[in-house]
Amino acid sequence: MGAFKMRGATNAIMQLPEDHKSKGVVTHSSGNFAQALSLAAQSLGVRAYIVMPKTAPQVKKNAVKDYGGLIIECEPTLEARELAAEKVVQTKGATFIHPSNDLNVILGQATAGKELLEDYPHLDYLFTPVGGGGLIAGTAIASKHFGKGCKVIGGEPMEADDAYRSLESGQIESNNSTNTIADGLKTQLGSINFPIIQQGVEQIIRVEETEIIHAMKLIWERMKIICEPSSAVALASLLKKKSNYKDQNIGIIISGGNVDLSELPF
Amino acid sequence: MGAFKMRGATNAIMQLPEDHKSKGVVTHSSGNFAQALSLAAQSLGVRAYIVMPKTAPQVKKNAVKDYGGLIIECEPTLEARELAAEKVVQTKGATFIHPSNDLNVILGQATAGKELLEDYPHLDYLFTPVGGGGLIAGTAIASKHFGKGCKVIGGEPMEADDAYRSLESGQIESNNSTNTIADGLKTQLGSINFPIIQQGVEQIIRVEETEIIHAMKLIWERMKIICEPSSAVALASLLKKKSNYKDQNIGIIISGGNVDLSELPF
Repeated sequence: MGAFKMRGATNAIMQLPEDHKSKGVVTHSSGNFAQALSLAAQSLGVRAYIVMPKTAPQVKKNAVKDYGGLIIECEPTLEARELAAEKVVQTKGATFIHPSNDLNVILGQATAGKELLEDYPHLDYLFTPVGGGGLIAGTAIASKHFGKGCKVIGGEPMEADDAYRSLESGQIESNNSTNTIADGLKTQLGSINFPIIQQGVEQIIRVEETEIIHAMKLIWERMKIICEPSSAVALASLLKKKSNYKDQNIGIIISGGNVDLSELPF
Repeated sequence: MGAFKMRGATNAIMQLPEDHKSKGVVTHSSGNFAQALSLAAQSLGVRAYIVMPKTAPQVKKNAVKDYGGLIIECEPTLEARELAAEKVVQTKGATFIHPSNDLNVILGQATAGKELLEDYPHLDYLFTPVGGGGLIAGTAIASKHFGKGCKVIGGEPMEADDAYRSLESGQIESNNSTNTIADGLKTQLGSINFPIIQQGVEQIIRVEETEIIHAMKLIWERMKIICEPSSAVALASLLKKKSNYKDQNIGIIISGGNVDLSELPF
């Protein structure tokens, strides 16, 4: 479905016992994970309930429906969506799967870095974006087990820098604002992925909005890959500090191409 | 450089004797082949002279310069560009390399189909766009030598259908018009690639402009690949006749992402 979230969603469902699978899975997301869980569930013959704010764009609701997800609408607040998801757990017996703060999701996301390291075993650095923390936590695990001293660096929007500040303070911090074009990175770190990130990530580099857009355009023009702003943040962070990484072998995970082609930022 | 033309340009230069290489190569093109020959020549330490109409967009001239090509401007007529290229051959001793009607260019383009057949040996059909005929002629050769009965089909804009009409009449026909968004496909078949196409291509399917744009958008949205209209013509031709190809294994060569992101057709 065009984003790494598919990896985590698939693994999380596959690891469920059969009697759990038969009752379905539920998540709250209006982004790529909603589509990923819907499609992964459909592929595995499992029902997927997706809690989405009623204000979510119709195009995102349609994408979930197209992948067979059953949408449950709620008010656009954190409390409402958690309540709605909990209700599905209670009434349907479905298993809740968090988009990023779930070990099997994290291990699924880890396969991206694992595959990159299989192709290029001598990477010195692996760059990923940081949103909810699932991808970078998975990448840290992959790097530890499959890399040869490969260090993991995260790129994060200045406007949603909870991971940067959490690593500074040593505890999970909240985003002060989420006024960023990288809409997939507005989410918060969680209790499961944060310790993995603390242990396995060397550094988070924060980038400005203009740097994100520049990196995104560069990927489009040079690599001919359609990526969304959130996916371009890792390259943006490398470009910002490129003098620090001279002559190093660097891998960048670019994933997620959910873009409205009629509303490009360039 | 983001298009299959790189393959043909590289092979054509590599096959030259050393004393020819030292005098450089020349072509006339304002499209992808101009950039491809420039970059291939630069990579191989060879000088590349590129004859371009003075009316060519500055962005294309800049791309050629960035790849180290030496631009020679001419009036925007076929006669003027052939004269200008011939002059470089005479005065510099450079070797003329035609963008599509050159056997070593054709053999270079053939590597795209060869690699696809190495990955998927059991393709029943290979679809490519048809412009000057280099790619489809190369694909026909690749299919014959590396396929298992794989047939080659070309997609061509209705508005530049010289290949379709040439196969019908049995001789090289000219384009009546070239009013198509697929600007890489306005060129004519040549004396070297036409016999190969006659022998090795099963059919040319012509498509309307709206079908080209629809296919291009589909590739952007679903495959997350930035392709130019010319590259989308092969998929457009398959979609137009898809009922004929039910349950077949089909490969499509999608290559060329030279798009002005500020002037998208959708």
